[in-house]
Amino acid sequence: MQRYIIPPLTKDYQTQPIILSDDFHHHMVHVMRMKPGEQVYLADNSGISFVAEITDISANTVGLKWVADEDRSTELPVEITIACGLPKGDKLEYIVQKGTELGAAAFIPFAAKNAVVKWTADKSAKKQQRLQKIAKEAAEQSHRQKEPFVHPVHNLKELLAEAAKYSKVLVAYEEDAKAGEGSILVDILEKLEPGDSLLFVFGPEGGLAPEELAAFRQAGHKSCALGPRILRAETAPLYALSAVSYEMELRKGADKHG
Amino acid sequence: MQRYIIPPLTKDYQTQPIILSDDFHHHMVHVMRMKPGEQVYLADNSGISFVAEITDISANTVGLKWVADEDRSTELPVEITIACGLPKGDKLEYIVQKGTELGAAAFIPFAAKNAVVKWTADKSAKKQQRLQKIAKEAAEQSHRQKEPFVHPVHNLKELLAEAAKYSKVLVAYEEDAKAGEGSILVDILEKLEPGDSLLFVFGPEGGLAPEELAAFRQAGHKSCALGPRILRAETAPLYALSAVSYEMELRKGADKHG
Repeated sequence: MQRYIIPPLTKDYQTQPIILSDDFHHHMVHVMRMKPGEQVYLADNSGISFVAEITDISANTVGLKWVADEDRSTELPVEITIACGLPKGDKLEYIVQKGTELGAAAFIPFAAKNAVVKWTADKSAKKQQRLQKIAKEAAEQSHRQKEPFVHPVHNLKELLAEAAKYSKVLVAYEEDAKAGEGSILVDILEKLEPGDSLLFVFGPEGGLAPEELAAFRQAGHKSCALGPRILRAETAPLYALSAVSYEMELRKGADKHG
Repeated sequence: MQRYIIPPLTKDYQTQPIILSDDFHHHMVHVMRMKPGEQVYLADNSGISFVAEITDISANTVGLKWVADEDRSTELPVEITIACGLPKGDKLEYIVQKGTELGAAAFIPFAAKNAVVKWTADKSAKKQQRLQKIAKEAAEQSHRQKEPFVHPVHNLKELLAEAAKYSKVLVAYEEDAKAGEGSILVDILEKLEPGDSLLFVFGPEGGLAPEELAAFRQAGHKSCALGPRILRAETAPLYALSAVSYEMELRKGADKHG
């Protein structure tokens, strides 16, 4: 059944008509050729997620009514923001798409020192828009109830300021992998509580510069390995998100039942 | 420092000269422009992994001597084989590359019923070769000590026969995610012992066919979800491998120290 992440709903969404237009109208009517009586999943990014039925279709709008709330959550219990040193080519699109499937709450493109790629001011808005569209589509296709937010590009100072807003911050650092570090990620994930926020920082292909790592450490944040193997810039965030899901949705979920 | 995965060594590798030729000679001499006295990591797929120093270079060969064994393992303690229903485009290359970074022991292309892609007999050998090359390069770049093996394409009957050789088999099944299944993966991973082998089966974009899933279940194998979100064909294997690493290298590793 098709899913759509829609603009924020009012508290009476269960009893009032829901009217969708523009891209939603186009996709439902012209792409999916849907008819009154057919059902879709709607989610509005606040955690509201439900089955809705099409009641009427006009030239520009689709009217729907609430049928039943979705009984399970497909969102991670913690908000994980992925900050990536700008990688080459289309890797950031890959990270946003697959990171969204894996549950990321937000993405921050980071103008890291060793990044070969630079975002000029006029390019930035366009790139951010394109990535946001990728996040939305990936969220809908992976049955998520929230669409991750793609931040504008941050420099180091801005990223450090942003980091202060999170419950926890981790910096994925290659040298830790080489040194055999293996307990910090587990330690942090085991202590995360539902509703916490974690900022995970990744370098570009050239890695984080020593002064960037030092700045994070000086601010009191830890670095960690993601296992003993060296992961590419576009693979590391996927490991981190999978580890969070495994720890917090499968292991802790199992603890609740077992 | 550069890494190479080389043909199997004899037991006296620590005392006898090591001679490399062909692609190794070309890469060391013509690409990396290495000289006698310089060092590289060598690994031979059996678990032997060490620092070696170049002693001499000729027109066709490079001579090296052992310097010191590598003191840590970058291999997963269990052998994970990833069987993928043939996905579209270059997704299998992605899966092999990133699956190798994440520690997979082997890959089995699976001619699943819903696969849009088919491998003809004459194409198969070429594709297998190309994927093997990708696995080798990814193994070297991620600092692995073994190069994963890319099997020839298997049909369902062949894959079921192959499955019988593993300590455990798991089938990633989308419907389990939708049904909220959340404990089987943890249960299996918690019980894995170092040296065990696990075959993980993934469907193509269209998912596994009901009769394929039934065949695995009939053979006594379980299916499981990978968290509540629906993952793409090329993302699911990366989640699985990350979960194995997190459970067996980080969590159990931490238990040993803590």
